[in-house]
Amino acid sequence: MRLNSDKEPQIPPRKAPIPLGKIAEYLDAEILGNAEELISRVAPIERAGVGEITFLSDPKKARLLRTTKASALIVPRDTPPIEGKTVLLVDNPYVAFARAQRLFFPGPFSSGEISPLARIHAEALIGEGVEIQAFACVEKGARIGKGSILFPHTYIGENVVLGERCVLYPGVKIYHDCHLGDRVILHGGVVIGSDGFGYAWDGKEHLKIPQVGRVVIGNDVEIGSNTTVDRGTLEDTVIGNDVKIDNLVQIGHNVHVGDHTILIAQVGIAGSTELGQGVILAGQVGVAGHLKIGNQVKVAAQAGIHKDAKDGEILSGSPAIPFKTWMKMVAAWPKVPELRRKIKHLEEHVKEMEKRMERLAPGGDK
Amino acid sequence: MRLNSDKEPQIPPRKAPIPLGKIAEYLDAEILGNAEELISRVAPIERAGVGEITFLSDPKKARLLRTTKASALIVPRDTPPIEGKTVLLVDNPYVAFARAQRLFFPGPFSSGEISPLARIHAEALIGEGVEIQAFACVEKGARIGKGSILFPHTYIGENVVLGERCVLYPGVKIYHDCHLGDRVILHGGVVIGSDGFGYAWDGKEHLKIPQVGRVVIGNDVEIGSNTTVDRGTLEDTVIGNDVKIDNLVQIGHNVHVGDHTILIAQVGIAGSTELGQGVILAGQVGVAGHLKIGNQVKVAAQAGIHKDAKDGEILSGSPAIPFKTWMKMVAAWPKVPELRRKIKHLEEHVKEMEKRMERLAPGGDK
Amino acid sequence: MRLNSDKEPQIPPRKAPIPLGKIAEYLDAEILGNAEELISRVAPIERAGVGEITFLSDPKKARLLRTTKASALIVPRDTPPIEGKTVLLVDNPYVAFARAQRLFFPGPFSSGEISPLARIHAEALIGEGVEIQAFACVEKGARIGKGSILFPHTYIGENVVLGERCVLYPGVKIYHDCHLGDRVILHGGVVIGSDGFGYAWDGKEHLKIPQVGRVVIGNDVEIGSNTTVDRGTLEDTVIGNDVKIDNLVQIGHNVHVGDHTILIAQVGIAGSTELGQGVILAGQVGVAGHLKIGNQVKVAAQAGIHKDAKDGEILSGSPAIPFKTWMKMVAAWPKVPELRRKIKHLEEHVKEMEKRMERLAPGGDK
Repeated sequence: MRLNSDKEPQIPPRKAPIPLGKIAEYLDAEILGNAEELISRVAPIERAGVGEITFLSDPKKARLLRTTKASALIVPRDTPPIEGKTVLLVDNPYVAFARAQRLFFPGPFSSGEISPLARIHAEALIGEGVEIQAFACVEKGARIGKGSILFPHTYIGENVVLGERCVLYPGVKIYHDCHLGDRVILHGGVVIGSDGFGYAWDGKEHLKIPQVGRVVIGNDVEIGSNTTVDRGTLEDTVIGNDVKIDNLVQIGHNVHVGDHTILIAQVGIAGSTELGQGVILAGQVGVAGHLKIGNQVKVAAQAGIHKDAKDGEILSGSPAIPFKTWMKMVAAWPKVPELRRKIKHLEEHVKEMEKRMERLAPGGDK
Repeated sequence: MRLNSDKEPQIPPRKAPIPLGKIAEYLDAEILGNAEELISRVAPIERAGVGEITFLSDPKKARLLRTTKASALIVPRDTPPIEGKTVLLVDNPYVAFARAQRLFFPGPFSSGEISPLARIHAEALIGEGVEIQAFACVEKGARIGKGSILFPHTYIGENVVLGERCVLYPGVKIYHDCHLGDRVILHGGVVIGSDGFGYAWDGKEHLKIPQVGRVVIGNDVEIGSNTTVDRGTLEDTVIGNDVKIDNLVQIGHNVHVGDHTILIAQVGIAGSTELGQGVILAGQVGVAGHLKIGNQVKVAAQAGIHKDAKDGEILSGSPAIPFKTWMKMVAAWPKVPELRRKIKHLEEHVKEMEKRMERLAPGGDK
Repeated sequence: MRLNSDKEPQIPPRKAPIPLGKIAEYLDAEILGNAEELISRVAPIERAGVGEITFLSDPKKARLLRTTKASALIVPRDTPPIEGKTVLLVDNPYVAFARAQRLFFPGPFSSGEISPLARIHAEALIGEGVEIQAFACVEKGARIGKGSILFPHTYIGENVVLGERCVLYPGVKIYHDCHLGDRVILHGGVVIGSDGFGYAWDGKEHLKIPQVGRVVIGNDVEIGSNTTVDRGTLEDTVIGNDVKIDNLVQIGHNVHVGDHTILIAQVGIAGSTELGQGVILAGQVGVAGHLKIGNQVKVAAQAGIHKDAKDGEILSGSPAIPFKTWMKMVAAWPKVPELRRKIKHLEEHVKEMEKRMERLAPGGDK
């Protein structure tokens, strides 16, 4: 067998093409052009061709609207007609792109098959139409909601409750008693409900504090590969609805994450901190423990949050400060060595002037 | 099946209640009140009720001591009597809380059952009372100490030695020849003994340097989910006794971690660095390679350590400096743009004064 | 069974010893001494003994060349003879050490055995001499190249293509359609091809954007434990040849990583960024999305890259700036509080001088 490690983009063809009219209907779009045209996939504007639909997300690429070979273009409603092009007019082209793509790739659907190689406890409750693949392990008292999919090597601990139409990719591990809502997607290697990091130093050794809360996750949550969410100490760690968490994020015990919040890769949230709704933490941000971060707070990459943040604050830096102050500060930073030299020079200058003045008017003139 | 994704705390009830007298005895506490009272769990002071014991860890909540509905309170020995309340007087309420909680949740115990779905090599040595769950894999020459538990999807490589009463949660992977002490707890997805990151550039490509040391871990170590510990290059990577490591931490090849040291989430230790005893590295700290970090060194979150640290140093910042200097520095940072303006203004001012002086006393007066 | 948690280095003896002449030939080295001497392993210079070969990598340890008990020394070609010592003269002792070590530890070789406990789809294509261990899972349409090894709990999704002589350590997960070259090594828990982090906010919720690109990985790539590489949105995420990636690294969707590039532990690369060839990013570096980082760019630990970098740039800090400027800047930082005091003092001083001058020459002298 010869394997060709080519690196050219080569997206596998999928399913039957879809008439443009059906796409327009789904996107709530107005068509200018042929509604019968068959579309077989979405493509980036630089490379779209016949049978493909594209969209303009970056205004800098507007000139490509005239030259693209795409069969159809998704554009804002106020776009003037483009000669020779079929367009779909929409309110928000990026949202329309996402929707169109979901028509072509509606996501994994349960086959409803249970692999004979899976290990399912007799006292687990498996909903209708659940798919469980080889080497998945579902423990006593667990409940798996309708239409959910468990990929290989997933582990569902005792009394875990999983909602409907969840997708657990390979190697997801959910410790006992945790509770997930509907349509939750967990990517490869995610760990939910491991012990929070709690010890009491008794003078000789670190005494482990049992972590007896759960992790409770809302609906429509997606969590990226190898992210870890610890269970609570006495109460629960809680992830709200429509929360989206990227890869390799750490969420400590007793943390509460508000609805619609976005945590980008490698963020870390220390124990007992509360994040509001619609918060966005960029990559590698760290948040200290026992803080209250308001709604719609936005934090730039690598920032370190050490105190509470009010609704709508925009923060950056470690320790974090308001973004605008931070921008001025970091612009000034590289000048600090020069400032030192200038101050030294000024000091000498002033001292010298003082000597001259002393000679002009000895002893001061007080 | 209808799944209710409620998010109210709902800790499952456990076991039989314990008489307060027995708890007091276990905590070495003095009781003021009814030793016969039955306690069924530990609860936070804000929410504790009848049949529950609570403790005061945060002095700001002292007023709750009078209003809590808890059946018993754990308080410091010098606390004056609280009217109508049953109290346990102890030296350290936080340690007593940890101990009490351990009475109710004494941690996972081996069932002694070996799943027929596990894969155990004929030449592995399994101690008495070991529990091995489905899809665990124990390779040739491995030795599993008495009373240990292997959860599903754990991998124990060739010749690995595991001490007594260890707990390996789902998906733990231990590469060949590594050596773990007694009562070691490894959480989901931990990788022990993967190759250290070592290459020699031969002018055309990176030549992999085989990593032939082991990872050697002491007793009473706990390691958090998805943390990775690389094996040594020629010698071993060593983790001491009573070391506690949080989630998503990276420990490079040849690193030595001293006893009782604490590494919080997302810390990274580069190769060949030596950490002393009782060190505490807060979240997201990075330590460069080939350093020697003394005993009891404490490092604030997100700091970057680039040089050796002496015993007891307290560091912060990237690059890290003494914490007190750092505190003053970061308080001054946002003022830097203002300092630039002030210096510019001073320079102009001084230049103008000099002109005036020159007119008063032309040519200087040397 | 009594387990001794000793922590003394104890590297297991391996295979038959190798005559020095054969080692010299393999290293393209000139021998001064007995070519018949049998060598059984490579050891660090401080501890090498009879039957062992060592090398000098750190010039500070040159004095050990005379005192080491090693049977042979690997030294640079211009090294003067060392009395009583057998030496191998080479161009680059570190590369020679790597090569010698590879003679003794030539890396895992496939046994060619397919475990009956593995799950291999009937429509997967398994090359000659492939080893597949227990609980590995190979899906429909996957192709595994000759001589590759799949450790336990590996997951090879549908239509994945794996080159020849790859090694996938326990718990590696490769999502559908991804494409790996020859001699790729993936360590425990690596996730390849999970969904990139992409959502469109539709005013009420985050709409998931299907991620339909692949991950395409070149030849001779090694990826460390629990690292995650996301699949592309519309096109592919691409990792070049001879790229070496450490543990817990995050690579976002659509990223391109050039040949020979090195990413050290806990680095994060945001979506659609392009890294050139021979780039080195030290530990915990973060790179923002949609950037172009040139060839041979080097970035110091914990830096945050927010804009494009030209070929050969050396950067540090967050936000990153040229390394030399950064060095001066951080040296000056701790002086900022002192600068504030000095400026305040200067301002007072100048104001006072101005008053004196006003008294000397009232009203100025314009």
